[in-house]
Amino acid sequence: MKGVVVNSIANPVQTAHAIKAMLSPQSIVIMGASEQLTKINGRPLKFLLEKGYQGKIFLVNPKYSEIAGLTCYPSLDKIDAIPDMAIIALPASQVCETIVALGNKGVPSAIVFSSGFGEIGPDGKELEKELLEVARKSGVRICGPNCLGLINAFESVYATFSQYADGDTHSGPVGFVSHSGAFGTAIAALARRREIGLGYFVNTGNEIDLGFSEIMQEILLDPRIKVVAGYLEGIKDGFALKKLAKSAIEHNKPLVLTKVGRLGAGALAAASHTGSLAVEDGLFDAVARQYGIIRARNEEQMLDILEVMLYTSPPAGNRLGIITQSGGAAVMMADRAEELGLVMPRLTPESEDALKDIVPGFGAFKNPVDVTGQFVANPAILRDSINVMLADPQIDIVIIWLQLMTNHVDLLVNLFSDIRKNNVKPFVVCWVAAPEAAIAGLHKNGIAVLRGAEPVVDAVSALVWHTQTRRELLQDQGASLPKINSVDVLSSVTGLHGVVPTMTAFQLLAGEGIPMAKVTLATSEDQAVEAWRMTAGPVVLKIESQDITHKTEAKGVHLNLNDEVSIRNAFRSIMKSAAAYAPKADLSGVIVQQMSKGDAELVIGVKRDATFGMMVMVGFGGILIEVLKDVAWRQAPFSEAIAMQMLNELRMKALFDGVRGSAPIDKFALAKLISKVSYFADSTSSRLIELDLNPILIGEDSLLAVDCVMVVD
Amino acid sequence: MKGVVVNSIANPVQTAHAIKAMLSPQSIVIMGASEQLTKINGRPLKFLLEKGYQGKIFLVNPKYSEIAGLTCYPSLDKIDAIPDMAIIALPASQVCETIVALGNKGVPSAIVFSSGFGEIGPDGKELEKELLEVARKSGVRICGPNCLGLINAFESVYATFSQYADGDTHSGPVGFVSHSGAFGTAIAALARRREIGLGYFVNTGNEIDLGFSEIMQEILLDPRIKVVAGYLEGIKDGFALKKLAKSAIEHNKPLVLTKVGRLGAGALAAASHTGSLAVEDGLFDAVARQYGIIRARNEEQMLDILEVMLYTSPPAGNRLGIITQSGGAAVMMADRAEELGLVMPRLTPESEDALKDIVPGFGAFKNPVDVTGQFVANPAILRDSINVMLADPQIDIVIIWLQLMTNHVDLLVNLFSDIRKNNVKPFVVCWVAAPEAAIAGLHKNGIAVLRGAEPVVDAVSALVWHTQTRRELLQDQGASLPKINSVDVLSSVTGLHGVVPTMTAFQLLAGEGIPMAKVTLATSEDQAVEAWRMTAGPVVLKIESQDITHKTEAKGVHLNLNDEVSIRNAFRSIMKSAAAYAPKADLSGVIVQQMSKGDAELVIGVKRDATFGMMVMVGFGGILIEVLKDVAWRQAPFSEAIAMQMLNELRMKALFDGVRGSAPIDKFALAKLISKVSYFADSTSSRLIELDLNPILIGEDSLLAVDCVMVVD
Repeated sequence: MKGVVVNSIANPVQTAHAIKAMLSPQSIVIMGASEQLTKINGRPLKFLLEKGYQGKIFLVNPKYSEIAGLTCYPSLDKIDAIPDMAIIALPASQVCETIVALGNKGVPSAIVFSSGFGEIGPDGKELEKELLEVARKSGVRICGPNCLGLINAFESVYATFSQYADGDTHSGPVGFVSHSGAFGTAIAALARRREIGLGYFVNTGNEIDLGFSEIMQEILLDPRIKVVAGYLEGIKDGFALKKLAKSAIEHNKPLVLTKVGRLGAGALAAASHTGSLAVEDGLFDAVARQYGIIRARNEEQMLDILEVMLYTSPPAGNRLGIITQSGGAAVMMADRAEELGLVMPRLTPESEDALKDIVPGFGAFKNPVDVTGQFVANPAILRDSINVMLADPQIDIVIIWLQLMTNHVDLLVNLFSDIRKNNVKPFVVCWVAAPEAAIAGLHKNGIAVLRGAEPVVDAVSALVWHTQTRRELLQDQGASLPKINSVDVLSSVTGLHGVVPTMTAFQLLAGEGIPMAKVTLATSEDQAVEAWRMTAGPVVLKIESQDITHKTEAKGVHLNLNDEVSIRNAFRSIMKSAAAYAPKADLSGVIVQQMSKGDAELVIGVKRDATFGMMVMVGFGGILIEVLKDVAWRQAPFSEAIAMQMLNELRMKALFDGVRGSAPIDKFALAKLISKVSYFADSTSSRLIELDLNPILIGEDSLLAVDCVMVVD
Repeated sequence: MKGVVVNSIANPVQTAHAIKAMLSPQSIVIMGASEQLTKINGRPLKFLLEKGYQGKIFLVNPKYSEIAGLTCYPSLDKIDAIPDMAIIALPASQVCETIVALGNKGVPSAIVFSSGFGEIGPDGKELEKELLEVARKSGVRICGPNCLGLINAFESVYATFSQYADGDTHSGPVGFVSHSGAFGTAIAALARRREIGLGYFVNTGNEIDLGFSEIMQEILLDPRIKVVAGYLEGIKDGFALKKLAKSAIEHNKPLVLTKVGRLGAGALAAASHTGSLAVEDGLFDAVARQYGIIRARNEEQMLDILEVMLYTSPPAGNRLGIITQSGGAAVMMADRAEELGLVMPRLTPESEDALKDIVPGFGAFKNPVDVTGQFVANPAILRDSINVMLADPQIDIVIIWLQLMTNHVDLLVNLFSDIRKNNVKPFVVCWVAAPEAAIAGLHKNGIAVLRGAEPVVDAVSALVWHTQTRRELLQDQGASLPKINSVDVLSSVTGLHGVVPTMTAFQLLAGEGIPMAKVTLATSEDQAVEAWRMTAGPVVLKIESQDITHKTEAKGVHLNLNDEVSIRNAFRSIMKSAAAYAPKADLSGVIVQQMSKGDAELVIGVKRDATFGMMVMVGFGGILIEVLKDVAWRQAPFSEAIAMQMLNELRMKALFDGVRGSAPIDKFALAKLISKVSYFADSTSSRLIELDLNPILIGEDSLLAVDCVMVVD
């Protein structure tokens, strides 16, 4: 992919091999091992021994001959084996020479704990650069520096000093990779409290070599892993993230990411705090949506989503049934479901009749069903209600809300377990203030249990969204993507640089099937008048100059001209004003163009982003785009179906349906246009920097781009 | 206050007396007591005995002569005392007669557990009505029916069967009242887990007599209570809520409410599930904002806010300092702070210099400060950083984020405790995955401890908002409210009913100082022409008829007329179309009015709400109000300062600053206008049903209401 910074220059097979060696080493060497097992350079050995790592452990430190009963070698070359992975727990100044030694030995991978690199400023950045060069030359692949390392809980690999490893770190089907050590540790500790087992825990730190996506890619391929999750502070390599997302969809391993830096203040803090490049959050969000990455707002929501993903089979659709013991909880969930676009259908008359007989009179037998607290005295009320709802053809997934029930845990766990065994349709339990035994019992029976009314709906919504998006992505790969137009039409035009002349830009875009207004370049008054005569009705005159981008500021635009005198006056006035505004500008003449009307104004934009490449935007024009920032982005190229999603993301989308008597807008034609722009952007990505179709006027039967700015390098 | 449904008809002194008797009874009688102490009618006695209630307990049930060593009386009249409160644990059918007996005895208050009332449908509603009548006649004040009752943990009053009481229910400075039994129990259980002590726990159920606000009012007056919190499913009595809010501000006891039913689906579910009247959520939200009620989105956020309110002194302003051991957490908090309008200032150069010396090189010494994990080895890094930040004059409140630290709890608790003792400025700890001992230790030292980066900023933001709003409310009561115009100008006009004639409405509003366009009623072509001649420039003609509200639909509006022929044609055409549209309508003539222009269109509306009385709305006109629903509401009357808050709440408020070269709008003039409308609405509240000033055209120096609809009863 062009226009994207690719971080890793090494070949993919070697990369995969090195990461595998790092994640599942048969042998580990600790460079700078310490006998003080509570210190950073002592903790990995402590964990490896305590938690029963089965591979070989080698220690290197000239200060010791033995630590904890293991031989400690004065240097690497004294070891009569080639370890799969090295832990480097040495001062920053010794890291480069150590990497050289590891390279000489043939060790494929190293985890560098050491800080004192990019995170400390310019000096560290220099050292970091040197370290990467050394790593490349020596062939050693690096995780870090400035990281807590990793845990592979399946094989008891504890190449870390994280305090998370002080407690129980039982393995489980979640792979978790974090940019941040402290935040990553916090998330891991919260996962443990919820009985969510992490098979892998990796902190990537400064990511000078191996990045988040590359490491996650290998974790995802482990058959013991069902869901992968990440905490990000930025994205260095948009290409690798896209590849990871595609792989996650293909292997059906949901990818759940929390990324900080959503707004200006956060992005600023991110830039000053981390080595990561802060990316525009809107672009990240769009890419996530486009490729089926589930974005969790914060750490608790990430864990909520993991919980649901781990235990719940994909629902057939977005139709939610709710059963509660509290009308209030039902209301809160119904509200949240509506906000998130989940549907809460009415049950079939048969189901309602059945529930009317089951549910007490002071409950509610319609969706959301309120079984009331009576089910404690008579559990059949709950069991039968759930079964009726799960059997209802109107319902795709069910949430059951209850609370406390300290005295009834076994009864309820058995009840849910029976329901689970006898039903194919998915359900999720929301158990507020659940006793620990309840959570453990439900997990044992393969049932997700959430902590609150809003979080459970958020998580179910993520499951529904992922299921649907995955289905669409798998279909999209097959059928609906037209063949990519590989012809870079920009390359056929010579001499382009900077702002492309209007006539050329309009021609190029029209040639790609994009409906452009008719424009004529007039280099004299007579030509301008002639152009007006060829046009039906009033025209607009605009200065044409590669050196003037702000035409209005240059007083280079005259609107609504419909007689010869006005045209001539306007031509003269425009040329004079433009010359005064930019004396050195090369003035090509004046563009003559019919005045156009529409019911709505849209803007389609393209920009080349350093991280994500060619990104396409759509939004309503005028004050709405300025004040509301109501826009949708996607990475080019994309299908009409994706373009349709963009339109549906706009907060002002009701405008498409026609407001105040104006006719509804043809969204399909619009989606086609946006998709075409995305193909144009993709095929010209080696040269196109920016494209703005603004405004695009939309009427009942018309769609016309009346102005555009195209910039190339 | 007019136009409001007042629920309680009894006098306030008697009400307060009865509620006090209910909340802190010297003696309790259990009507329908059972020897089966695990049943609903047995559990109160079990709790009272187990938890050591010091008052007298009387039992009534003809089935027993003794329960758990206490005399059980066959009937109330056998008891030789007048209990303060009765618990009624009997079938619905026996409740009315029991209330009569209690009344005869002189028992002032009763808690009715029994279900089978309004919540079961029409029959229950009938019984409920009867119960209220009986209660009024007998003078017994009722909590319930269909409720879990109450706990006063200070005096060990357990008039409840809630499973919350199965565990430890230690008292504390929070008063909590819930509409819902199940949801209320869930919240109480969550509070217990967080070591937030509830002094009072009340479930009000169907609220046929005593309502949420009345009971909360008495709880709030208990000096042991510092904060009050409620869970609501609707509001029956807007007047009582406002009174409660004012009392909460006066006594400086923050009132934190979670109300479900934010959207359509939820409101529907609420209506079908609860006896409560579903109120328009936007109105509730506005009233909460207006009177300093803190609205929590859900139960967890409620507890977050309680935690901060309980332990943290009010900050002087909204300037937030952040100290973390994780850059990522800093970013997440900075983002959230920006979203919520908290400011994160740069520290003074002196502070930055000091922090540069304290914080390790790979941390960050600017706000947000990242002390890194190094503080574990050297706690002075954390202590000194916090002290520097608290001393910085740029900072009003500080959040400190850390995680896990299982091995360093005592050290950290002592560190925070010292800082607390030596500083006046407030700070809050956010400790992710905090060990239980950490939470207990910090609480003991009067320090709030939150669970995550986003929740802590949410809660601090609530504290900042409440502090500021309280200050403004206390000021507002004193100075800035102009004297209320007590003259109902509507009463001076005879014969008004339904839609008020345009001429009258415009005159009335202009008389109140509201800038209305000049309008003339023409009853003939000649008069219309005459009116046009008296106007500078083009005019608009509009049908005038009390029977036609949709003038455009009736083809009764002609715009932009500026010559005699057009005026005459328009007059004829309008009268003809209107007669065809509504043959029975009484046509008064045609309004002639100058065409007006503005840079922006606003709408100001008044409606009389059954719960909250006269409510005033402002929003941008046109498609924005239709599609975005971008409006702000307040209860009339209110000051210009409150009107200014409304303007600042609008999402499109950037339009006031001028967009695309248009001049900024005079917000002060606008605020004055809105406040004036609110006074008009208040003074005419006995008759005004609806008022719509739409549009109000706003230019650089102009402000003009060009049309209005006024409806009276």
